[in-house]
Amino acid sequence: MQTLTVALGDRSYPIHVGEGLIDQPELYTSHFAGRQVMIVTNDTVAPLYLQRLKSQLAEHEVAEVILPDGEQYKSVDYIEQIWDALLVAGFNRRATIIALGGGVIGDMAGFAAACYQRGIAFIQMPTTLLSQVDSSVGGKTGVNHPRGKNMIGAFWQPRAVIIDTLTLNTLPASEFSAGLAEVIKYGFIRDAEFLDWLESHMVALRQLKPEALRHAILRSCQIKAHVVAEDETEQDVRALLNLGHTFGHAIETDQGYGQWLHGEAVSTGMVMAADFSQRRGDITEADTQRVRQILLAAGLPIEAPQGMSAERFIALMKHDKKVIDKGIRLVLLNRLGDARVESEVDETKLYQAIVDFPRGILQRKNG
Amino acid sequence: MQTLTVALGDRSYPIHVGEGLIDQPELYTSHFAGRQVMIVTNDTVAPLYLQRLKSQLAEHEVAEVILPDGEQYKSVDYIEQIWDALLVAGFNRRATIIALGGGVIGDMAGFAAACYQRGIAFIQMPTTLLSQVDSSVGGKTGVNHPRGKNMIGAFWQPRAVIIDTLTLNTLPASEFSAGLAEVIKYGFIRDAEFLDWLESHMVALRQLKPEALRHAILRSCQIKAHVVAEDETEQDVRALLNLGHTFGHAIETDQGYGQWLHGEAVSTGMVMAADFSQRRGDITEADTQRVRQILLAAGLPIEAPQGMSAERFIALMKHDKKVIDKGIRLVLLNRLGDARVESEVDETKLYQAIVDFPRGILQRKNG
Repeated sequence: MQTLTVALGDRSYPIHVGEGLIDQPELYTSHFAGRQVMIVTNDTVAPLYLQRLKSQLAEHEVAEVILPDGEQYKSVDYIEQIWDALLVAGFNRRATIIALGGGVIGDMAGFAAACYQRGIAFIQMPTTLLSQVDSSVGGKTGVNHPRGKNMIGAFWQPRAVIIDTLTLNTLPASEFSAGLAEVIKYGFIRDAEFLDWLESHMVALRQLKPEALRHAILRSCQIKAHVVAEDETEQDVRALLNLGHTFGHAIETDQGYGQWLHGEAVSTGMVMAADFSQRRGDITEADTQRVRQILLAAGLPIEAPQGMSAERFIALMKHDKKVIDKGIRLVLLNRLGDARVESEVDETKLYQAIVDFPRGILQRKNG
Repeated sequence: MQTLTVALGDRSYPIHVGEGLIDQPELYTSHFAGRQVMIVTNDTVAPLYLQRLKSQLAEHEVAEVILPDGEQYKSVDYIEQIWDALLVAGFNRRATIIALGGGVIGDMAGFAAACYQRGIAFIQMPTTLLSQVDSSVGGKTGVNHPRGKNMIGAFWQPRAVIIDTLTLNTLPASEFSAGLAEVIKYGFIRDAEFLDWLESHMVALRQLKPEALRHAILRSCQIKAHVVAEDETEQDVRALLNLGHTFGHAIETDQGYGQWLHGEAVSTGMVMAADFSQRRGDITEADTQRVRQILLAAGLPIEAPQGMSAERFIALMKHDKKVIDKGIRLVLLNRLGDARVESEVDETKLYQAIVDFPRGILQRKNG
């Protein structure tokens, strides 16, 4: 097991990464606020891990909420189900919520915790690669609204993050690859050395070799934690984490949520960002080729959806909530391992880049 | 006008108290996060002050939500109406919410602000005496749940509190008296000198003399702000603010919310706390008599509801959410001007005190 501390003053918390951590209750019970524990999970994860977790909590007053699995249930209605369950169980402000599942469960359980009796303790047990390297660091919680993703939410830090890498054994390969997109992103924006390491360990990662997983997850959390600690409430530094996301959100919206996985859309989005950076003269053709290669090796798409026009891209990118008053804002690469935020991108040049960008059909070999 | 700063580090904010402050936009526009402003108010206050406020905001992009007036609408459903309105208006994370109304509006608008895009700016314009001296200081926001009051919410500080004392001219006399209960409470728990001042200025206050109002409100906010600054997330010190409230909540619940005003129930509750403190030998009979006198002079009840048994009181007091695991916790008086929290109160003695306490019918001479 390895441990990383997210430094946030009196709200600092540990991230533990290793095999079989669900079976090591001392790692999380020490962070409980009291005896009452509410496990929030979904109907995919519950059959796999709920009993194992509960068997470690025999000394506690445990209740559970099992939500339907899927982004479409990430709404205020289902948050109310969690609040109802807490009140039915008679849980007070010293109760603790454990989020057992992927990013959707983490976002919802965290938001429910943020607003139950004005805030109770909360522990993350992310079970997907994406949530392990992304959503369990940073304190963002919340739900979607019919008019926009993540429109309702709060910043609320967990007391601890418990990453049991064995849970990845039950994750579909396509979702594992989607998680790798975010891992690779950390290399692109902040760490050329990590990028080298990822290139040489991609096979080991996709074979779920424990040591490789532990390093990749820990380094990803470390980079994200650094970025978040520098800039807790998302201004410029944190915006670097959005590399590929403005293009990616446009793809997700165009294709309908759930068609392209978030990480898949981000993968193509990062290639589009690299391509545009190359056109600006910031990186070389060889760099862009390297971007494509590593994403391909991770089992990820590198082409935009067939039939999605440049007009459509631009229109959707302008609706992105990160567009504040001004023009389109993009994260671009200075080189592999360093990125910057560019406000008011030249729309004509961007349009041409998107027109020229290759299109293809999304293929999953092993999902 | 007088100004008080609530010291909370980088979340410190000013409370301005004076006549006609709604007509002095520079006091609040300087705290806006951007051009977008959402006014949240109710159907009682809107006809009185909404246009006056909007006429000061001609330079801004203004939208409004008018909620039905009443505690029964303080629910998640109506919070969703505020979020919907923000999204329909296309407001981003630099929008500002103004709460124009009493405590219910402040609690709801604040909670909506706390969770819109993970938190936007928020300004309080309380229009009732109760909200001016109580709910606009402390950062508590939230809504009720069918299973309990204020169960869902967040701590969220306003950027500024604008108290226009002229709004009290339209407040029913019974609600004004209910607000005075909280003003007097501050004297009881923290400030014997303020209590003397209140005794000698009660007539001026009830005649809405501007200078008296300004002093009473400012001193109340000052005491609450001190208590809150000492103890932002409600542990022991802040609990002193609950003088009379454990008895009071029992009365409100027994009588049905809305029958007794909150301040009326707290008034009788404070007499019950004083009576019990006297039985414990902490204060004298003359002190208790003084407690009754000042509350009577403020137009408030000092007797428990007719027909409400001691058994009923005890049962309801045990359901109060401030009862954590242990027995009943009460705020008791050490002397007039100083209070303490007593955990695990002797239930037999408390029962007898409630049995002996006078009962009466709630009368309102001028409400």
